[in-house]
Amino acid sequence: MTNIELLTLLEENKLKLIHEELSKYNPVDLASLLSKLDEEKLVIVFRILDKEKAAEAFSYMENDLQQTLIKTLSKQDIKTIFNSMYADDAVDFLSDMPANVVTQLLENVDNETRADINYLLQYSEDSAGSIMTVEFIELHPTMTVKQALDKIRKVGIDSETVYTCYVVVKHKLLGIVSAKDLMIRDSETLISDLMKDNYVSIKTTDDRETAANLFRKYGLLAIPVVDSEGCIVGIVTFDDAIDVLTDETTEDMQKMAAMTANDDPYLKTSVWKHAKHRIVWLLILMFSATITGSIISNYESAFAIIPLLVSFIPMLMDTGGNCGSQSSTLVIRGLAVEELQFSDTLKIVWKEFRVSLIVGVTLAVANGLRIVLMYKDIQLALVVSLSLVGTIIIAKIVGCLLPILAKKCKLDPAIMAAPIITTVVDTFSIIIYFNIATLIFKL
Amino acid sequence: MTNIELLTLLEENKLKLIHEELSKYNPVDLASLLSKLDEEKLVIVFRILDKEKAAEAFSYMENDLQQTLIKTLSKQDIKTIFNSMYADDAVDFLSDMPANVVTQLLENVDNETRADINYLLQYSEDSAGSIMTVEFIELHPTMTVKQALDKIRKVGIDSETVYTCYVVVKHKLLGIVSAKDLMIRDSETLISDLMKDNYVSIKTTDDRETAANLFRKYGLLAIPVVDSEGCIVGIVTFDDAIDVLTDETTEDMQKMAAMTANDDPYLKTSVWKHAKHRIVWLLILMFSATITGSIISNYESAFAIIPLLVSFIPMLMDTGGNCGSQSSTLVIRGLAVEELQFSDTLKIVWKEFRVSLIVGVTLAVANGLRIVLMYKDIQLALVVSLSLVGTIIIAKIVGCLLPILAKKCKLDPAIMAAPIITTVVDTFSIIIYFNIATLIFKL
Repeated sequence: MTNIELLTLLEENKLKLIHEELSKYNPVDLASLLSKLDEEKLVIVFRILDKEKAAEAFSYMENDLQQTLIKTLSKQDIKTIFNSMYADDAVDFLSDMPANVVTQLLENVDNETRADINYLLQYSEDSAGSIMTVEFIELHPTMTVKQALDKIRKVGIDSETVYTCYVVVKHKLLGIVSAKDLMIRDSETLISDLMKDNYVSIKTTDDRETAANLFRKYGLLAIPVVDSEGCIVGIVTFDDAIDVLTDETTEDMQKMAAMTANDDPYLKTSVWKHAKHRIVWLLILMFSATITGSIISNYESAFAIIPLLVSFIPMLMDTGGNCGSQSSTLVIRGLAVEELQFSDTLKIVWKEFRVSLIVGVTLAVANGLRIVLMYKDIQLALVVSLSLVGTIIIAKIVGCLLPILAKKCKLDPAIMAAPIITTVVDTFSIIIYFNIATLIFKL
Repeated sequence: MTNIELLTLLEENKLKLIHEELSKYNPVDLASLLSKLDEEKLVIVFRILDKEKAAEAFSYMENDLQQTLIKTLSKQDIKTIFNSMYADDAVDFLSDMPANVVTQLLENVDNETRADINYLLQYSEDSAGSIMTVEFIELHPTMTVKQALDKIRKVGIDSETVYTCYVVVKHKLLGIVSAKDLMIRDSETLISDLMKDNYVSIKTTDDRETAANLFRKYGLLAIPVVDSEGCIVGIVTFDDAIDVLTDETTEDMQKMAAMTANDDPYLKTSVWKHAKHRIVWLLILMFSATITGSIISNYESAFAIIPLLVSFIPMLMDTGGNCGSQSSTLVIRGLAVEELQFSDTLKIVWKEFRVSLIVGVTLAVANGLRIVLMYKDIQLALVVSLSLVGTIIIAKIVGCLLPILAKKCKLDPAIMAAPIITTVVDTFSIIIYFNIATLIFKL
């Protein structure tokens, strides 16, 4: 149903028909359809949805839309929505609301839900605990497949995923059983015989990115989250992992482009907020770039004699910057997907050094020829080409080293990307350039 | 078991113990454990594994390791491995092998497997068809839940995922049934009553990134792949989607850093290959940067009179480049996760323009003050600050527009990132700078 069709049905007040139509909808699409309505119509349509559906759609809505709804819905509606929302979705929503609203909202949900939510709210935003759900299927080793299936029938509907069940005794996690095994094995088989005890798990305090990388590595559906005593407290499901991977990558890209991380949607972010996220690094980098400038002014005498020297500065600086960011990008990404470790440092530097030789010489030759042809000046060609090789070697070494060192210093490697590398390499390239120039032209 | 423990057990020739130990292993970890062995030991250990396990581990190995094994294993071993591998994993492996090896290998697998593999090999590398598996559970609408579960018991073991079943009549896909419903609903319920017909599906020819983004959007376990007639030909599972998202992001980041895309692991890529992937863009950008250079030389007279002017060039160029890449990064990422569309162009440009005003003025003031304090020269401060504002506005407009235009021209927006933006913006900044300078200093 298109936005227009929905509006016409609303005009004609055909609420029953709307209810039928929308009940066929996938919650994700329903959320985006509703987001196109104005506040008044939104509330009308939202209230004629089945509560289940409404809650699901609600958890997929943009934050501002959720707030509009919360303001206008009755306490009773809010209660039903929250009770039928998955605890972790509810937390996602609450964590973006002002504290007073949160407390006011929590008063309206039933005790069990409130307990779950409060429990999840305690974990820091980047921890595995913050993305886990507390709803999962707990089995006992002495159960039979039949009993297990009966339990899933009873509680299954409320669980975000029923496809991995967890064998637990006194809160301790003993092993996991896949729903696949439950479906294909004889109904009298004991859970203890099906159970896999070499499962992958994470701690509540682990970084959510670590958790997400485990999904990437093992292709799992869900990972149990255990506390320091090895008791299971929740599970992380693959869909949350995909979201985390997406957010982390977006944040990395933003840091790599000299911005402070911010994963609000671009169009929903205010101009002021956009500016705020960009200015800090720009100021830092602008002032560091003036160092390069003051170094240049030390060589005023040089380009007073040969003004042409100045015209090669942009080419040297840009090439240096590009070479550096090539290396830093490869290393930053390699560290993020855990393909590179600190222990590889020497291998990486050695590789980058050899690459920089090949790249440097190729570019130097190409550029040297151009200069000889354009300016018929072999000395000049020599100065620029030698500086180019020097700049490229330094750029690639700096480019691959800084992210690794950042990681070692528990900093995010992503901040050691193009902008910083460029600023650092600029200085080197200028010094190399004018020194070689003074040497060869005997300035 | 650590690498050393394994080696000692090999020394002592305790093959039975090794077999027991390794059979507990997760295939991913098993693959990385084996990758640490030398060729001879690798083959010994590999041959004492259960065939199932061996095949699973094989599909998780690095390509070079797989090739070593293939060379040394007997035709019979290869046959068993391929037959117990998932068709799409087999294809992943074959697509990296020389054609003659592929044909020779295919001679050794049974007809059914060969048919599946050949079928998958026909799809272009970036299509949804290339990442799909042909093994999935097909149900008929007239089946009961009990009959469905019986069918899963029979064929389930071979299917990469049994958690979404597909209701098919004459190859046409009518709807999907989740294993969860099969488990919790009464065993006499008809599939046609359980079936959801508002499912998400993709075409074999769709881009694999489109497929992956559907997983991100809907948090699905698997998506059916249909041909142009709406007949189901396979399914894509979430684990393949996560791999695609990872690869696509890596390729984007590489393009954004002026490299040609290459998702081989960093350390496994030869120095020459690394150089090859970096040189092309460096050459293009180096020569474009010389344009900026030649423009500078037009203003020789200007900095002959006021040499100090030159020392602000790096700061202007870097700031312009950084501002531009901030905007382009946000837009490129927004387009990649399908948060931004071409239709948003005007909104984006208007937003970037306002952001650039705030950022520009802030930086101009900060820098102006610095110059007044350092050089006691208000005219100079004015020249630099005005140029800064102009550069930043142009940088942000160009930065957000180029990726959108690239997308519109069916190019990958990722190539319109920092390096190109920087090169383009450099030229503008130099022109603005020296024109304002000539104007204010009446040069």
